[in-house]
Amino acid sequence: MPQRNVKEQLVEGASQVLLEQGYHAASVGDIVAAAGIPKGSVYNHFDSKEDLAMEVVRRYVASYPFDALLDPEGSPLARLRTFFSDTIERTVARGVTSGCLLGNFSTELVGHSDPISDLVADSLKQMGGGATAVLEEARERGELDADLDPAVLGPYLVDAFEGSVARAKVSGTRAPLDSFLDFTFDVLLKR
Amino acid sequence: MPQRNVKEQLVEGASQVLLEQGYHAASVGDIVAAAGIPKGSVYNHFDSKEDLAMEVVRRYVASYPFDALLDPEGSPLARLRTFFSDTIERTVARGVTSGCLLGNFSTELVGHSDPISDLVADSLKQMGGGATAVLEEARERGELDADLDPAVLGPYLVDAFEGSVARAKVSGTRAPLDSFLDFTFDVLLKR
Repeated sequence: MPQRNVKEQLVEGASQVLLEQGYHAASVGDIVAAAGIPKGSVYNHFDSKEDLAMEVVRRYVASYPFDALLDPEGSPLARLRTFFSDTIERTVARGVTSGCLLGNFSTELVGHSDPISDLVADSLKQMGGGATAVLEEARERGELDADLDPAVLGPYLVDAFEGSVARAKVSGTRAPLDSFLDFTFDVLLKR
Repeated sequence: MPQRNVKEQLVEGASQVLLEQGYHAASVGDIVAAAGIPKGSVYNHFDSKEDLAMEVVRRYVASYPFDALLDPEGSPLARLRTFFSDTIERTVARGVTSGCLLGNFSTELVGHSDPISDLVADSLKQMGGGATAVLEEARERGELDADLDPAVLGPYLVDAFEGSVARAKVSGTRAPLDSFLDFTFDVLLKR
């Protein structure tokens, strides 16, 4: 199925280029060069660069380790920590200067692409909701203080995480990511 | 002093356009149109769009209410809250979809402009350091638990703030900003 392979190559190339360069700075030419396919074939699969970027965001979100988060086994807080630490290691493996696609697009595409901005807003909401669900479980099991409202804390932790990814990106070091993880789970939620 | 007025108009126009559109999407033509000055006059004052953007970032950082933060009067935690709440109100007044220039540039310019990225990284460090200084004072006065290390907590709060600004920007609502403020100061630091 050569058609499918070309589409896969295209999405993979676009994922890499859009993460490294951002949306506006990445041309379709950069994307097809990274994907190793002829330029014209982009439009056999996608209507536009925006349409391709939407698929890249959907794949990016689908690759988050949500399964580990919702695994009924094990301590809820330990699972939430694993969710973030796995995400951090994937970020570092790609290169901290690439950052997070959701974080990058949340600041770059407002006013330029409503479909991408809406998808990013929904995806951040999904992450926050996932964290909230596990925190609720933690509270029910007595792992989390009753004064910490999971509905507020979940999105708050995602914000703190995204802020640390942006700072890691611009300062070129993983230290903010490690600091987020240790401080959140060893100090903030342990008190 | 007409020269100075043109430069001021230019920096003000650029501040608005770079915040609203981002770096790559904003052309020098957009900037001079917003500033109401002829295009050629940009290069009487700045070597390049990058050079102009550096000045915009410097002004942006200088406009933070650091004075209130370091005011020796009043409770340190109350001053830190005022610092963030004033910054939130300024963000809302500009329009939440503009976000924060430091947050926007932290994700957009890595790999594209080392001078701007370095300035943004330094500015975020300065904000984190400012928060740390006030938190140290709070700890000395017994306002903050001894298990919260100000050197880690300061940058952590700035990350959480920047994450909430990005989420407010992409979701078009101030709710994440209010949530950051209330949860940080009414729950997290009060326990």
